[in-house]
Order: sequence, then structure tokens, then C-alpha cells
Amino acid sequence: MKVGIVGASGYAGEVLLGHPHAKLAAVTSRTHAGKPLAQVIPSVRGKDRGLTFTPSDPAALAASDIGLFFLALPHGAAAEFAKALVGAGKRVIDLSADFRVADLAAYEKYYGKHHAPELLAVSRYVQPELSPPSWKQEAKLVASPGCYPTSILIPLVPLLRDGIVSREHIVANSLSGVSGAGRKVEEMYLYVERAESAKAYGLTKHRHLSETEEQLTLLTGAKTVIQFNPHLVPMRVGIATTITVPAAAGATIESLYASWQKAYGKAPFIQILPSGETPDTAHVVGSNRVDISAMYDPRTKNFILTSAEDNLVKGTSGQAVQTMNLWYGWDETAGLP
Amino acid sequence: MKVGIVGASGYAGEVLLGHPHAKLAAVTSRTHAGKPLAQVIPSVRGKDRGLTFTPSDPAALAASDIGLFFLALPHGAAAEFAKALVGAGKRVIDLSADFRVADLAAYEKYYGKHHAPELLAVSRYVQPELSPPSWKQEAKLVASPGCYPTSILIPLVPLLRDGIVSREHIVANSLSGVSGAGRKVEEMYLYVERAESAKAYGLTKHRHLSETEEQLTLLTGAKTVIQFNPHLVPMRVGIATTITVPAAAGATIESLYASWQKAYGKAPFIQILPSGETPDTAHVVGSNRVDISAMYDPRTKNFILTSAEDNLVKGTSGQAVQTMNLWYGWDETAGLP
Amino acid sequence: MKVGIVGASGYAGEVLLGHPHAKLAAVTSRTHAGKPLAQVIPSVRGKDRGLTFTPSDPAALAASDIGLFFLALPHGAAAEFAKALVGAGKRVIDLSADFRVADLAAYEKYYGKHHAPELLAVSRYVQPELSPPSWKQEAKLVASPGCYPTSILIPLVPLLRDGIVSREHIVANSLSGVSGAGRKVEEMYLYVERAESAKAYGLTKHRHLSETEEQLTLLTGAKTVIQFNPHLVPMRVGIATTITVPAAAGATIESLYASWQKAYGKAPFIQILPSGETPDTAHVVGSNRVDISAMYDPRTKNFILTSAEDNLVKGTSGQAVQTMNLWYGWDETAGLP
Amino acid sequence: MKVGIVGASGYAGEVLLGHPHAKLAAVTSRTHAGKPLAQVIPSVRGKDRGLTFTPSDPAALAASDIGLFFLALPHGAAAEFAKALVGAGKRVIDLSADFRVADLAAYEKYYGKHHAPELLAVSRYVQPELSPPSWKQEAKLVASPGCYPTSILIPLVPLLRDGIVSREHIVANSLSGVSGAGRKVEEMYLYVERAESAKAYGLTKHRHLSETEEQLTLLTGAKTVIQFNPHLVPMRVGIATTITVPAAAGATIESLYASWQKAYGKAPFIQILPSGETPDTAHVVGSNRVDISAMYDPRTKNFILTSAEDNLVKGTSGQAVQTMNLWYGWDETAGLP
Repeated sequence: MKVGIVGASGYAGEVLLGHPHAKLAAVTSRTHAGKPLAQVIPSVRGKDRGLTFTPSDPAALAASDIGLFFLALPHGAAAEFAKALVGAGKRVIDLSADFRVADLAAYEKYYGKHHAPELLAVSRYVQPELSPPSWKQEAKLVASPGCYPTSILIPLVPLLRDGIVSREHIVANSLSGVSGAGRKVEEMYLYVERAESAKAYGLTKHRHLSETEEQLTLLTGAKTVIQFNPHLVPMRVGIATTITVPAAAGATIESLYASWQKAYGKAPFIQILPSGETPDTAHVVGSNRVDISAMYDPRTKNFILTSAEDNLVKGTSGQAVQTMNLWYGWDETAGLP
Repeated sequence: MKVGIVGASGYAGEVLLGHPHAKLAAVTSRTHAGKPLAQVIPSVRGKDRGLTFTPSDPAALAASDIGLFFLALPHGAAAEFAKALVGAGKRVIDLSADFRVADLAAYEKYYGKHHAPELLAVSRYVQPELSPPSWKQEAKLVASPGCYPTSILIPLVPLLRDGIVSREHIVANSLSGVSGAGRKVEEMYLYVERAESAKAYGLTKHRHLSETEEQLTLLTGAKTVIQFNPHLVPMRVGIATTITVPAAAGATIESLYASWQKAYGKAPFIQILPSGETPDTAHVVGSNRVDISAMYDPRTKNFILTSAEDNLVKGTSGQAVQTMNLWYGWDETAGLP
Repeated sequence: MKVGIVGASGYAGEVLLGHPHAKLAAVTSRTHAGKPLAQVIPSVRGKDRGLTFTPSDPAALAASDIGLFFLALPHGAAAEFAKALVGAGKRVIDLSADFRVADLAAYEKYYGKHHAPELLAVSRYVQPELSPPSWKQEAKLVASPGCYPTSILIPLVPLLRDGIVSREHIVANSLSGVSGAGRKVEEMYLYVERAESAKAYGLTKHRHLSETEEQLTLLTGAKTVIQFNPHLVPMRVGIATTITVPAAAGATIESLYASWQKAYGKAPFIQILPSGETPDTAHVVGSNRVDISAMYDPRTKNFILTSAEDNLVKGTSGQAVQTMNLWYGWDETAGLP
Repeated sequence: MKVGIVGASGYAGEVLLGHPHAKLAAVTSRTHAGKPLAQVIPSVRGKDRGLTFTPSDPAALAASDIGLFFLALPHGAAAEFAKALVGAGKRVIDLSADFRVADLAAYEKYYGKHHAPELLAVSRYVQPELSPPSWKQEAKLVASPGCYPTSILIPLVPLLRDGIVSREHIVANSLSGVSGAGRKVEEMYLYVERAESAKAYGLTKHRHLSETEEQLTLLTGAKTVIQFNPHLVPMRVGIATTITVPAAAGATIESLYASWQKAYGKAPFIQILPSGETPDTAHVVGSNRVDISAMYDPRTKNFILTSAEDNLVKGTSGQAVQTMNLWYGWDETAGLP
């Protein structure tokens, strides 16, 4: 099985170079065309098999013998490639936001005009541990979740489904390493700006809200609105999320853990930590895991849910490879750390 | 006016060495007795006036001609010095938790046995911008606030007083640099543990909760319970706090800012940022400021309050010097950056 | 005395806002004209006296009643302002490289065409602790040293002058925080590139070599060539320099320290640490100090000289203010931390 | 093939859990006996196969069916286990310094009394890319190199062997992440001490000098003395080394690269970068690579050699696994990233 990556995604490339079933056959980039992969992504020196970036040309890629493409492009740009590749019968896993929001109006409110709305009907949002498995047959195109939504959906969805927590007064605070913002060359992302700095940003209007709330609603059967407060902290990678949510009547910390155990007892990438042991981003760096934990506060009658993930792995590329593995019926963990 | 510091507090020493009215006449430490100040606190090299640590002996200090002492000691240890010094008619500003909680039972629940409960009647908790000014006459001993409580009380108290926000469903998430934990030599505070790590800790039971809730109640006239979620992030100093709180009926972002303006319009160390501009710990490092800001979220009907401070300055020693300035009737900003 | 700053230099502004003799009367910037100083440099919130950036117009500044200007501009751009201001009889302290190299050919080899070579005759390179004091009368324009050169010249010059060390096989390795590169918005300076990264850069051809070697030669009376290996390490500020240099015949660690003591015994900003105690950038952050120390290695017969400074203070703006103080005959330490 | 690890080495455990030929059958620790591996080393959660630390008992380990042991113990402590295990015919790869220095007097000068000098005759120091391959037959016990020595030996040994560089005036400056010091719980290694700090340490007497100089001498055939200046910089992992060495008469940058190419052209873990492209620790984190590069400075007639490695992988545990692979005749890269 040959696969390709459109756009210079370092981590996806690294994982796929060591994958037992998929062979990375093409890496494309408008900016880097002509450069060796190892020059742009020095961490793959010595295992890059001589791969060189080729131009990102939708028609040429559509005509190739490659069966699946990962799109690692900004939102807006992904749609063009999705059209050509899906049209040619290729499987596509899109890492951008272009197909994450089924509600076109919601998408356009946060992201502007959609360039391929006709594909929304054949695309599926796939959170591997949560999405109904029929996506494997239905999807021509998979929208892989954003990094923040994964850190919120994994702990919260089973508890909403099982009636363990309230749908009101849900407050999610997330702490993200700087790579969560991509490699944009802007003053805000300079070392001298971010080192020794902690701050909230994107309050009340972060783009990931739209897909998070849509998925909460679709996956748990009732409209759900949350407060989402993202923060930047001085780390390269990692997202830690802390969710405060009122306990439902009768819910206990035991019923909460039972709900998680039912949802994730066999999930290879979800680690449920004992109550009182808090997930730490440092423990999941480089892995495709989400670690989750919970406490009950008798003073406030709230549950405090905590999660940690590597935003570049489980938060983006690793999760996309996990989805590919499921789509082809391979071992879910193949090639993943 | 001669002042002394009991315990090796780096920042208090630095500030007092440059103070225009107070002369640092003694620094004492059981661990460092005999060592030059500049050896223990290298940042004061060249301006340390030859000061050397002497042993921390309550009786000797009580007999000295020093008028005011800062106690930079662990809770429990401070009480012993407070008794001797207050007994000798000295003024005392205590940086520990020993006299921060007026409710003895609440203190002992979080901190264990109290060693000088008889002093609670003559001690006052002083958040300079918020505490009723009668403390200047009433206090023999001042309890200076903790770093987290300052970052929560400053934005929240005026809004509770003025009925701008609900008393229910208040959620405060704080992000602290590692020095917030002091200089304890424990595995948790090693560089290799904390670098590239973000995690919640002390959930549902952090000690600062007791003073925060007591002050919220005393300063705003009604019992107030909050969810407080502290986190450690990879910075040396700084605390960023994000508070989610439902808006009271009829409250607007304008009425919120009017409440803050009334409370802090003349406060030299409180900077009110426009709605949408978020405080950043990097901007307050080394200063005695708290920067605050707020947004209204029409989707959830919550206000999001944000604050940033330097935990070693406004969060501890700088605030204590500010309190000394007020106590003696000096310019509130004397000696402070 | 009114002073002005041309170009948005955060630290110079901060220091001058608190200076006892100089009044910061103008801050100018082509990029930031019209914006309040505190918006561009948030660390001065609350003490900015309402200053707002005005456009950087050489003619207007030349016509003002301001007596001295600091030029905080890129090399090349500084020359234009220097011509107008010196022509109008203003004193100028230039933080750029434009007047640091007296040898025009050497300048143009490293920096390209010089735009005001006629000013070289009336400009003086001033390392306050080392330059012959006649500059105070001779200079119409002062070139303030670069950050790396200060960290090399301070430990090395007295030892070369006094014949304590060899002129051959001098190897200087410097470790710089990222702000040493300014605030350039380039991929190399992104947080995700620099965090958890140590690397040499600019080997064999760093621009600061030209002024370092010229000053070593001018200040010590013989041509001196060094190996200079700069490195970037993950810090906001600070430069640590380690110089390996063969001991001259008969030199001892005692004669080395005697040479330093003679040169710097009364220098308020040079701290000489005992042999074996190594300077640490963390100890000088925010101060105008250079800490220096030395060891002798009997195995190799080398001296190892070490220095640490804050590259934004002693390495740039603080040193420029120190120079202003000396130029006007004020206390050398006025306004400096 | 069953293997065991004596002492809690996180990285060795991680690598061996995924090794295709060796099965990690025991992890032992006096401190952690009884605790699950995943509790002590949270990064292996989910792939730890239920392993639990057992007590470190030399006799019990000697009696087991495990064929090879890695000793991840402090120097001094390793000797006791080495005696028991070698005596029982087990293969041993020691990560401590106990058998790195063949010269007993040199060992005892730096490390104190040796507890198993009789094993020096059957132990071999193995730098996989450099040591004569006869060690595979001769060794009963392998001493795996220290992290600093690897970063110096790899670039320098071929050039000394081939007469490309001088043996005089060799200056090696190394920058190490904090984990290079292990997980010692000491004030020096606290986050608040090391963040935003760069400093030299261990000047003229770092313990790694003894093995480095002994190996330089043994591997290149003539006594070699170097200046070694180690520094601590604020990173979790990584070592960057910069070596300044005079070029031998007639040597060119081309002959230097030819020497490296001859030595390392087929070495899977050595990446030779073009002259002018400097190794960066960030590019080798998590890999078993050493990246090396060189420049010639015509002004000084020196070569500047640079190298970068992950101190926990190629600098310690990864290299030990590479050595195991060679010892058993497996693919040199088996199990290594």
C-alpha cells in the first residue's frame, strides 16, 4: 500500500517511514519542492530512504498509483486537493479543519467560505475511540480531529452519554505547547515572546469550539455548549486539559470510572489513571496516548476531569495513522509508538 | 527605620536593599547563618552592603533595635517568631500561612496544629487594594496573602461586591511557574521533571483554598465557594489565572469594567487591560503589578476574568513591602519596581 | 536633561523612565508611530507617563530640544540618523554596529557599504571599563559595544595588557539566549525551533568578530586573532562566555586575579568571583553586571576564563545608559539596577 | 533471549520493551522494588507488559535464566553486581563508570576506590563505531561510554588517527541538557535553578575527562590531552559539543571529510552533515544518532568540529542496546529509533 503526504508534516512523515504495512511513496510541498525530506525534517536523517519533496499538484497526485493521501495543509487549501483526490477514487485523511464541521454555516462562521461543500456528504469526522464504526464503509474522506477537541471529547463524551455529568456549566481549560499553533512565523510564536510566558488566548471564539460542540452534540445525543479557555504555555508539545463539570444527580467517582472503563477498557491508546493521579504532558510526549483521570469535589459537587496528550501525535498525525490502520483493517497500533 | 528578614527570601532582600526609607539591618537563617547574603542570593552581588546571615534567634531579634520584621518561613515555624516579636512590640509582616486564616478550624484542617492561636485576634490579613484600611491601626501582625489568592481576589472581589457576577459555578484555573512551590529540593521540582510538562496538581484540596474562600466571604459579605484548579507549567515565575463565572442578571462587560475602575482606578499596581487583551505573565515579571482583563461570552452567558502577576513580587515579597509602605504612611510604591 | 530613543528598544525605555537625571522625552519608531509605549512594551505599563511613539524623522529630531539620543536601529539605518543628529550638535549613543569598527574595510567586509564613513573620525567605541577616558571630550558620537564583545573584552583585555596570557590559541565559546538575536521574526527564532535546542551558529564569520579583534588589538597594543564560537541555547536572555587561553610563562592564577583586581577593583558593574565559582547567567539577569572568574589547568597549562552578563542590559542598553552617565559626569550607576 | 536491567533506567526500559530479539524479563531497583514499571516510568504506560520492579539482589539475578544484564547504577555500586553476574557467566553491559577506565590509578583519582579491579582484565570499553571488533570475543563485561566522551570521540578519533588535526591545543566545549546529570535530587538540578541559566561547571576536573583521554590515546596511538569545558544549559536532554583544534599541516576540509567518510560511511547512527550546516540537539532527540559537521577557519588555521546527540539514547542506553545487538550478531539497529 503506497501512501502520500501533501504538505510538510514532520511527524506524519516520521511515523509513516517506519510503518509495517504502508509505504510512504510521496511527500509534496509547494514551499519545499526539490528539497530532500531530511533537510526539511532533520529528525528523519538516516531513515528517509532518499525521499525528496515534489510539487503539490492535485492532478498529478490523482493520477498516481498511491492509494491514500494525508492532507497536512491549512484549512481552505485542503479542499482543492480533497476534490481532485476523492474524485480519482483515492482515500483521503484530512488533518485540516475543512471537513471537521458538518454544519456548513458553523464552518463558515469560524473559517470563512468553504471550497468543497459538496464533499461534506461523503466525509466523516473520525475520533477513532468514539465515532460509530460505520465510517469505515461510508467515508470517502476522513476529517481527523483537532488537537484540543481530542483532549476534551475523550474524557467528556462517555460521561455525557451515560448521564454521569451535567450538560450545564461545563468549563474546559486547556494548556497547549507552542507547536499547537503550527510553525507559523509570527511574532507571537517567537522564543522570546513565549518563553517564561503563560496566557489565555482565543477566549470565547477559538475555532476548535465549533467542531468540539458539534461532536459533543452528535456523539451524546443532545445539544451541548461549553466554555473553552485555551492557554499557551512554554513547551514545545503537549496539551493538558482540565474540565470542571457538575456531577449528575446520583453520580459518583465510581460510576464515572465505570463509564470510562466501559468506553475505553480495550482502547490501546487511552490510559485511565487512578483518581488523584493527574495526567502530565511530559509522560505522553512522543506517544499516541491520551491519559485521563478524574476527581470528585464534595465541596462543589463537581467532577474535575483531566487529560494529557501529545498534540502532534494523538492530537494530529498519530491519530490520523491510527485511523488509516482501522480503515484498512490493520492492527490499530501498527507503526505507532 | 531598620527592618529585618527572618528566613532566606531572595526577592524581599533585593527590594529592601534599594528601599528609600527602610534600611535592611538584619537577615537571619538557621541554614545559612554565617554566609554572606550575596553568596546565598547571587543576584545582589555588588549591592549587598556586606550583609551576612545571622542565626534566627527569636529572643535576640526581639531585643534588637529593629522595628519591623518580615517572616519568610514555612508555616508552623513562623508562629514561634511572631510570638516573640509581637510580644516585644515589633511590627511583623508574615509571608507564611500561619495567620492568613482567621477560622482556626479551617486553618488546622489544611495546615495542622496552630502554634500561636492567641495572636489571631491581633493579626490582620492585608490585601492592600481590598482590605478595609482600619488594619493600619488594628494590626500588630500582618498576614500577607498567598500568590494564588492575590490572583483570584483582585479580579473577583469587586465584581462579587457589586453584584456583577454569580456566586455559583465559579471556576478558577491557575497556571503557576515552578518557584510558586518555593525552593523545595524534591523530585517533583527537578528541571527534568518540570521542563516540557504541564499538569494539574492539588485538585480539590490546595491549601490556598482556605484563605481564598474566607477572604471572598469576608470581603464580599456572603459565603462563597469556588472550584480552584492549580497547574504547574514550565516557567521560573509567574501566575496566570482564568476565572469562569456566570454573569449576574443585567450585568454587562461595561458594568464589569466600571466596577473594576471604581475599585482600582487609583491603585498604582493594578493595570486594567481592555476587553480582549489578555494578561501575560511575561509582561509582569519583576514588577509588583497585577494585570487584569475580562470578556463576556454571549453563548454561555459567562464572564471570563484573567489576571497575571509575578508570584515572587506581587504574589509574595513585593506585596509585603507595599504593605509596609502603607503601614508607615510612606508612598505606596516606595522601593518597588 | 531630555533624552530620546530612536527605535523601539524595550529595555532602554524601561531604564530611562526611572532615571534620576535624564528625562525620556521622545520615543520614535517607523513601525509603531502612534501607538502608546506601553502597548508595544507591556512591561512599562503604569510607569510610562503616557509616552507615545512618534515617527522616526531625523530632521524633526535634530530640531528638537533633546540633548542626547540613543539609536536602537539596525546597522545601516543608524548612520542616517547619526548624520542629522551629530550635525545638529546632539550627542548620540549608537547601539548598532555602524560605528563600532574603525577600520572601514573591515566594517564593509562584514556589514556592507557604510553610509556615514565621515563620522568615524568623531565617533568613539566606548567599553566603559576599558576605553581610555579621553573619549568623553573627543566623542561626538559613541558606539556602544555588542553583547558578545563585552563578554570577551572584559575578562581578556587586562590579561593581554599585563602579559598574563598568550595571544595565540585563544578560543572563546559563547552561549547566548535567543534575544541576543533581537526580535527578528524568522523561523530560526520560533519557540518550537529553539526550545530544547543547543547549537553552534555563525562559526568562523560572526559579525561581532570584527569589533572584538579590533578592540583587543587597540586596547592591548598588539594584533590579536581569536577563535570565536557562538551558540544559541534555550533562554530568553543572558550570555555565558568561556575562554580557553594558554597561560603566559610565569603567570599564575594569583597574578591573573591581581591583574583583574587592578583593572576592576573599583568598577561598580564588574564582579570578580573566586576561582572555582563559575558565573551563571541566571545571577545577572536584569542587572548591569558582568561576573567573571578564572581557573588554571595544570594539565594543559591553560587558563579558563568565564563571564556572564545580561545581553539586553550590560550587553546593550544598560551599558549605553552607563556610558551616558559617564559622559555627563553623573554617578556611573544612576538609574541602573 | 531474556535480558534484565538493574537500576531504574527509563530509556533502556523503553527501548527494550520494543526490541524484536531481546525480551525484557526483569527490572530491579532497591528504591522501587514492588512498584509497577509504568508507575516509575510513566512513558511506558500501556506497553509495559505488567512488569514490576523486583529487589536488586546479585545472587538471585545470577541464578536466573536471564542471559544479559544492563547495569544502570551509580559508579561504585555497579562493581558488586558485575562480580556476581560475570561470575555466573552472564553477559553484562555496564552503564556506569566502573569499568570505563583501564588505568586503575586514573580511575581511583577521579572516582575513589575501585570495588572490582580484577574484572578490568575481562572488561572492554566499547564505542561501537570505534572500538576494535575483537571485543565481541574478548569481553565478559562491556563498559558503555559516557555521554560527553561519545560526543568528543566520534568526531575526533578518525581525524587524530589520520593525521588531519594537531594533538596540541584541542579545546572541547560541551553543552549538556540537565538530564546529563541523572535524576539526582539536589538544589543544583531544580527547575528554578536551571531554567534561564547557562554556566560552565566541572572545569579542569570533570570525571569524563579520564575515559576520554584514555580512549583518545588508545584509539589513536599517542598520548592526547585536551581541554574539556562542560556547560549546563536549560534543556531536558541533548549534548552539543564544539571542538576547536589546529589543522595539521596540509590538511583541508576535504581531507577531513574524507577521513570521516572512511570511518563512518556505513555507520547507521553517524550522520555527516555538510560543512556549514551545524548539528542541533533538537534534531537528534529520541534517536540513537550522532550528527557531526566541520568547518575550516583560514584566519586561525583551526578546524571547528561540532556534534550533537541525545545524551540518554546515543549517550547512554541506546548505545548500550546497539552494543548488545552487535554482541549477539543481530542487526545493529534492532529496536532502536
